[in-house]
Amino acid sequence: MADKKKTNIILFSGDYDKAMAAYIIANGAAAYDHDVTIFHTFWGLNALRKDEKLQPKKSFMEKMFGKMMPRGANNMPLSKMQFLGMGPKMIKGVIQKHNTVPLPDLIDMAKEQDITLLACTMTMDLLGLKKEELLDDIEYGGVAAYIAEGEDGAINLFI
Amino acid sequence: MADKKKTNIILFSGDYDKAMAAYIIANGAAAYDHDVTIFHTFWGLNALRKDEKLQPKKSFMEKMFGKMMPRGANNMPLSKMQFLGMGPKMIKGVIQKHNTVPLPDLIDMAKEQDITLLACTMTMDLLGLKKEELLDDIEYGGVAAYIAEGEDGAINLFI
Amino acid sequence: MADKKKTNIILFSGDYDKAMAAYIIANGAAAYDHDVTIFHTFWGLNALRKDEKLQPKKSFMEKMFGKMMPRGANNMPLSKMQFLGMGPKMIKGVIQKHNTVPLPDLIDMAKEQDITLLACTMTMDLLGLKKEELLDDIEYGGVAAYIAEGEDGAINLFI
Repeated sequence: MADKKKTNIILFSGDYDKAMAAYIIANGAAAYDHDVTIFHTFWGLNALRKDEKLQPKKSFMEKMFGKMMPRGANNMPLSKMQFLGMGPKMIKGVIQKHNTVPLPDLIDMAKEQDITLLACTMTMDLLGLKKEELLDDIEYGGVAAYIAEGEDGAINLFI
Repeated sequence: MADKKKTNIILFSGDYDKAMAAYIIANGAAAYDHDVTIFHTFWGLNALRKDEKLQPKKSFMEKMFGKMMPRGANNMPLSKMQFLGMGPKMIKGVIQKHNTVPLPDLIDMAKEQDITLLACTMTMDLLGLKKEELLDDIEYGGVAAYIAEGEDGAINLFI
Repeated sequence: MADKKKTNIILFSGDYDKAMAAYIIANGAAAYDHDVTIFHTFWGLNALRKDEKLQPKKSFMEKMFGKMMPRGANNMPLSKMQFLGMGPKMIKGVIQKHNTVPLPDLIDMAKEQDITLLACTMTMDLLGLKKEELLDDIEYGGVAAYIAEGEDGAINLFI
């Protein structure tokens, strides 16, 4: 009995469009019956933030980072064409018109397809993000978890 | 009879230097007898745009995107050192001096080496790019086409 | 006797945080007994620059690039949150507080773990970087060297 193929995506970027690409590939691979994991690290952790305002106990630096970083998928900026802040609104408008799936829905779809959403604990610590600020039902791990999955990956990407 | 090894590159970026890197790796892999595909998605589609000014029928939003995005490889910006718009000219000047191959020639070379240049139809739709605006002799597909190739790839990269 | 698994990372980016990610993954893979190579190309070459000021003979263009690019890992900018130049200092401050390893130490660790640090000669030439400006004990190669390693890679990433 053959094992399922694995797709492992490291989502480093905090950009809306790059996160969209990551989740579209992840959902596509899951539809092809791959075992899929998205490792959220650095700014990619923002895709997993809840959009409500929480006040966990933080150091000054951690508070600064927390304020400067977007809360959740829906608030992430574009990698390009951010002009006057218009970019994300335009993309979201176009997404609606074209019946493309916006990022928050892509994340829900990923959960329904049993894609593992993993948050990198080392960078959570670095950026001062607490578990209570991130979505429920995700997993936690470090570089060791990534290497263990990645070394058997049919598709490994860094986004 | 062994199958050829596969190299699959997702070109997401619309930056001149990143597209150069993608095409240099692609041409290198083809020279090593790999079966190579470059999947152009999001801003990476700009590398496939014709540089002539076409006027296909578009919605207002699509026209905006069309104007804001560079037409073709030769007009793409740098990822870094874009200072005062000088960056790309400097790089292109240096490329000429060093007999390195500029991006439009790297794309021609890719075609001659039978590298498959594929445009992502989902993001074409999203950004309002029409087939008549893109280079001839390219292929079209979506995430399914990528997973089908990627899962057998010896080298899979997201650029 | 089984060969060691291979991890090959192309470090294209000149950003401090992306280089950190590259070196953390590389060190992690080496700890898992992978044969690891980091191919430094384009702005990623800056991670290998010595931080002393050297004056090799250069053309005007090469001097310009040399001045505009950061000298060494410790001087690289962040990919995000570069606001007022505060970003890198904040990250480095936080790194210290959290006992995370800063980039220059990650590079030393990589050397101790026998990770191959390779500089892309084609882009060195393009950006006017000379061997005497880069760290000692590194290797040199081009796209052929990458394909030769990459086609057997268990983990291949472009960062």
